[in-house]
Amino acid sequence: MAAPIDFYFDFSSPPGYFASLKIDELAARHGRSVNWRPILLGAIFKVTGQAPLPGIPLKGAYVQRDWVRFGRLLGVNFTLPAQFPFLSVASSRAFYWLHGRDPQLARNFARAVYHAAFADAKDTVPAEAVAGIAERLGVARAETLAALNDAGVKDKLRQEVDAAIARGVFGSPYIIVDNEPFWGADRLDQVERWLATGGW
Amino acid sequence: MAAPIDFYFDFSSPPGYFASLKIDELAARHGRSVNWRPILLGAIFKVTGQAPLPGIPLKGAYVQRDWVRFGRLLGVNFTLPAQFPFLSVASSRAFYWLHGRDPQLARNFARAVYHAAFADAKDTVPAEAVAGIAERLGVARAETLAALNDAGVKDKLRQEVDAAIARGVFGSPYIIVDNEPFWGADRLDQVERWLATGGW
Repeated sequence: MAAPIDFYFDFSSPPGYFASLKIDELAARHGRSVNWRPILLGAIFKVTGQAPLPGIPLKGAYVQRDWVRFGRLLGVNFTLPAQFPFLSVASSRAFYWLHGRDPQLARNFARAVYHAAFADAKDTVPAEAVAGIAERLGVARAETLAALNDAGVKDKLRQEVDAAIARGVFGSPYIIVDNEPFWGADRLDQVERWLATGGW
Repeated sequence: MAAPIDFYFDFSSPPGYFASLKIDELAARHGRSVNWRPILLGAIFKVTGQAPLPGIPLKGAYVQRDWVRFGRLLGVNFTLPAQFPFLSVASSRAFYWLHGRDPQLARNFARAVYHAAFADAKDTVPAEAVAGIAERLGVARAETLAALNDAGVKDKLRQEVDAAIARGVFGSPYIIVDNEPFWGADRLDQVERWLATGGW
């Protein structure tokens, strides 16, 4: 089987959410699996000097319209939560902690976090909210809350974000296929074509 | 016939160049004509606080790779000129001046400027270069050079850029179909679908 593709995303990124709904099936059509890798755009923007989209004059209004339109086109539920942009540190820490126990559980958790944030427009920022999502997947609430404060768990996320930056990741979603990078939910067609053809 | 669509672009924008090669045929397939409207991203970025892409850490390297790959996918010639980003003030002024004389001539001029910059990787910044492009379309060199220093011509471009900003234009290409805005050469398929269906 060919190498997995890397799927970098921020839990607070609508295009990352859109891609999360498509990427596994897309990869499977070409015999590939997917490494899901949450990142923190806030940390990355300190390197690139970028700012969260909603606050950018003109562009901020446009992208929010574009996301809603893109979601309708994809046929997926999409609503921004009341607080946006929001912090995705707790859900990202929980993801890597769960990944160490069970990669499939971590992926289910990631899907549940994205669904809560952008289909149900719920607040996924507090540790209690993240622990509640994990609890519905069978993880004891107290264990998740403890993990979110664990120094090793915090370090793991930092290392993952640093490694992503070292690979050039600057946005969400950012998908790497055999060292070829694609940025944006609007590059999924190109990802699929790259997988099908080996490049052009 | 339905209303024309508005095609805003910067002469120094590779995605604007890509869109310029597709937009007229795309619109014609749906019984539409296209208003070509050069803008100046430099002036717009003063409003939005954005910066030219090539200088942005990580993202700058990615987008240059993405443009080359996108051009290959579209099957068009694409090479960045040695000086990039570059100023598009003179070509934009010349466009609106020519448009006042003959809109079709202005469009042919725009195509020739884009071709010079991104297919032939030539320098299109100096007034002499712009006058040379117009000359090959039958416009006397001295007339173009005089127009480029005309206060009325300068004002016209300023007014067009201000009007674009007032409509929310923040990037290139930026295409408006019946008040629905689409940003990016990677939104052309959505533009086409919007024209075909009236929206979704």
